[in-house]
Amino acid sequence: MTLARAQELDAVDPLAHARERFAIPAGVIYLDGNSLGALPRAAATRVRQTVEREWGDGLIRSWNTADWIDLPRRVGERIAPLVGAAPGTVMAADTTSLNLFKLLAVALGLRPERRVILSEEGNFPTDLYIASGLAAMLGQGHELRTVPAESLAEAVTDDVAVVLLTEVNYRTGARHDMKAMTATAHAAGALMLWDLAHSAGAFPVDLASADADLAIGCGYKYLNGGPGAPAFAYVAPRFLTGLRQPLTGWMGHARPFAFAPEYEPGQGVDALRVGTPPIIGMSALDAALDAFDGVALADIRRKADALWELFVAEVEARAPELRLLTPRDAGARGTQASFAHPEAYAIMQALIARGIIGDYREPDILRFGVTPLYLRHADMWNAAVAIGEVMAGREWDRPEFKRKAKVV
Amino acid sequence: MTLARAQELDAVDPLAHARERFAIPAGVIYLDGNSLGALPRAAATRVRQTVEREWGDGLIRSWNTADWIDLPRRVGERIAPLVGAAPGTVMAADTTSLNLFKLLAVALGLRPERRVILSEEGNFPTDLYIASGLAAMLGQGHELRTVPAESLAEAVTDDVAVVLLTEVNYRTGARHDMKAMTATAHAAGALMLWDLAHSAGAFPVDLASADADLAIGCGYKYLNGGPGAPAFAYVAPRFLTGLRQPLTGWMGHARPFAFAPEYEPGQGVDALRVGTPPIIGMSALDAALDAFDGVALADIRRKADALWELFVAEVEARAPELRLLTPRDAGARGTQASFAHPEAYAIMQALIARGIIGDYREPDILRFGVTPLYLRHADMWNAAVAIGEVMAGREWDRPEFKRKAKVV
Repeated sequence: MTLARAQELDAVDPLAHARERFAIPAGVIYLDGNSLGALPRAAATRVRQTVEREWGDGLIRSWNTADWIDLPRRVGERIAPLVGAAPGTVMAADTTSLNLFKLLAVALGLRPERRVILSEEGNFPTDLYIASGLAAMLGQGHELRTVPAESLAEAVTDDVAVVLLTEVNYRTGARHDMKAMTATAHAAGALMLWDLAHSAGAFPVDLASADADLAIGCGYKYLNGGPGAPAFAYVAPRFLTGLRQPLTGWMGHARPFAFAPEYEPGQGVDALRVGTPPIIGMSALDAALDAFDGVALADIRRKADALWELFVAEVEARAPELRLLTPRDAGARGTQASFAHPEAYAIMQALIARGIIGDYREPDILRFGVTPLYLRHADMWNAAVAIGEVMAGREWDRPEFKRKAKVV
Repeated sequence: MTLARAQELDAVDPLAHARERFAIPAGVIYLDGNSLGALPRAAATRVRQTVEREWGDGLIRSWNTADWIDLPRRVGERIAPLVGAAPGTVMAADTTSLNLFKLLAVALGLRPERRVILSEEGNFPTDLYIASGLAAMLGQGHELRTVPAESLAEAVTDDVAVVLLTEVNYRTGARHDMKAMTATAHAAGALMLWDLAHSAGAFPVDLASADADLAIGCGYKYLNGGPGAPAFAYVAPRFLTGLRQPLTGWMGHARPFAFAPEYEPGQGVDALRVGTPPIIGMSALDAALDAFDGVALADIRRKADALWELFVAEVEARAPELRLLTPRDAGARGTQASFAHPEAYAIMQALIARGIIGDYREPDILRFGVTPLYLRHADMWNAAVAIGEVMAGREWDRPEFKRKAKVV
């Protein structure tokens, strides 16, 4: 590989046009779309419209005239095909954490004779925190049980109500076999709940063919919905009838504007709604999804793999002291590349100072997200070259790169 | 009163300048700020900055460089003085419904030997729904008990853990005596939780001097934070140490970026945080609060009362068939004016067609919000004249005004 060859690949890249859908600042190679997706131009335009025209001019009328009231469902319907979900099974709402709370409660309600939420050691902390918070709150002997990934299959014992896993590990990028793991859970009588935080928008996900029961996902990573964008929740069709969850806010009511004294859940995923939806952020997410128009997730994945392989090969050639944590086999990983190094934090700060933006994860991980909608082969090459220079010149070895910021 | 006199009052109104802080569309008299506050110009500017500069250019770095991470706390600190709360006692987060869930759980945890949440028949439905949803979820004999407002004092029996009331009733505008009711709850050993949805930003609220234990409030009504703006939650200083709530998301962790496997609540109101905060909407709310800069809530209330009295007198003179539901005594109400009429829905649609925007509430209520930051005496006069004409000419008696929209 050479820079010239990388540029040739970009010249014939069928996804190259998608980069124009994003506002990428000059001088930046953005390898953190797995933490906060870049700004889609359509989202900026739409937010202005929502604020100035719909809120400013339309005022309260926009709940009807701009159909704000059904925006969470419409956004859910647009996310559905990205995760292999049937129409009517996805709702955009609240945060990943809150959606997990709702769906874990649904799962425990469906398996009342079982008391265990099974997850993986090293799952994303909020998933573990929410699960243990819910278990403690129920106060009926429920518990969160975590085991190493390799012990999951044998840990699905007959007291497990639900298996909660993030498909792609946020640190390593390792990916579970969704279909096999779901089958294992089902064989033991447990339900399967997938966290798609690092999957949705990154590659084709097929919840339906995997026979997943429940899923949650994030709006601000690969879906590019903006900082703190609404999250989403999926419920398999077989559980939609009579669906109930414990956060019974008025927007989840069958007829919210009847202002009836008794709660009556809305139909299907409508029951997952709680309070008044965040219209500005929801509009940004809605418009952000335009970036997927006319683009196949299989093509995104194909390009992601090419970028990943180029990047990892060039990094390993230039900075052998970085140890790849992510599985090399494309089938066993998502689209991030993670490397370990004892000075990972300082190295990442030195890279960011050069405009190569990835992120750091405790305790020693450099994390690079590969987002083919706005990354080019030449970007990956240039990033790898910069990493090589930062390592060779010990550019990271400066005090200002070692002081940890509040958010890492 | 005459239009000329109303205009004279506007000419000497010390709050007149505040109207320029809002983008009020031409041809509209906006009397629905109690449902969705009008757009503050600063919010539109700030949202553009947040989207285009902070998200677009800053990307992931803005969590530190724009201090997104502490924005919910900063916004909470700005809301605190509007509701008589000490620094460090208010957090902006999630929705009113979700904050209520958290704080009711806190209250029940503080009174473990008691099982009753006491509220008022006719409280805003989401408050009742959330309370009964929580009670059902706990499954330990907890219950929501509702009584008519006039029976509340005697209903605070020794099984009541927490009294949950909305200070100003969303239908009638009637206002509870916060101090007296809180004292009654305390005398019976119960905690007092106030919903400030129709109070915060409308008039001076003094949670501290009322000795309230807990409170929640809405960001998109009198605080003008935009559709679905983040809500807020208050916890009295005496309960801040060791504060815990059951929605244990990662942002409520003492050190979220340590990614520790065990949940450890943040200090004080930090423990009320759950998932990643909605930065765009939170920025809008933050900027919206600028509209209160240099304006005393007592002056807002004083003008609100003048506008209310002008409006009610003129409406009653012109449309005697509308029956005032709101207490006339300013001390016994908030700042909305509600009238009953069997054709209330159609009447409101006819008014909206004329650009006089209030709203309708089941079963027969015309609701008009009085928001002195952007309303003028002449607006109230003109609105009353329009109401008189709509009633005198039976302008509402058209089929298109009787078809109910999805959102009323």
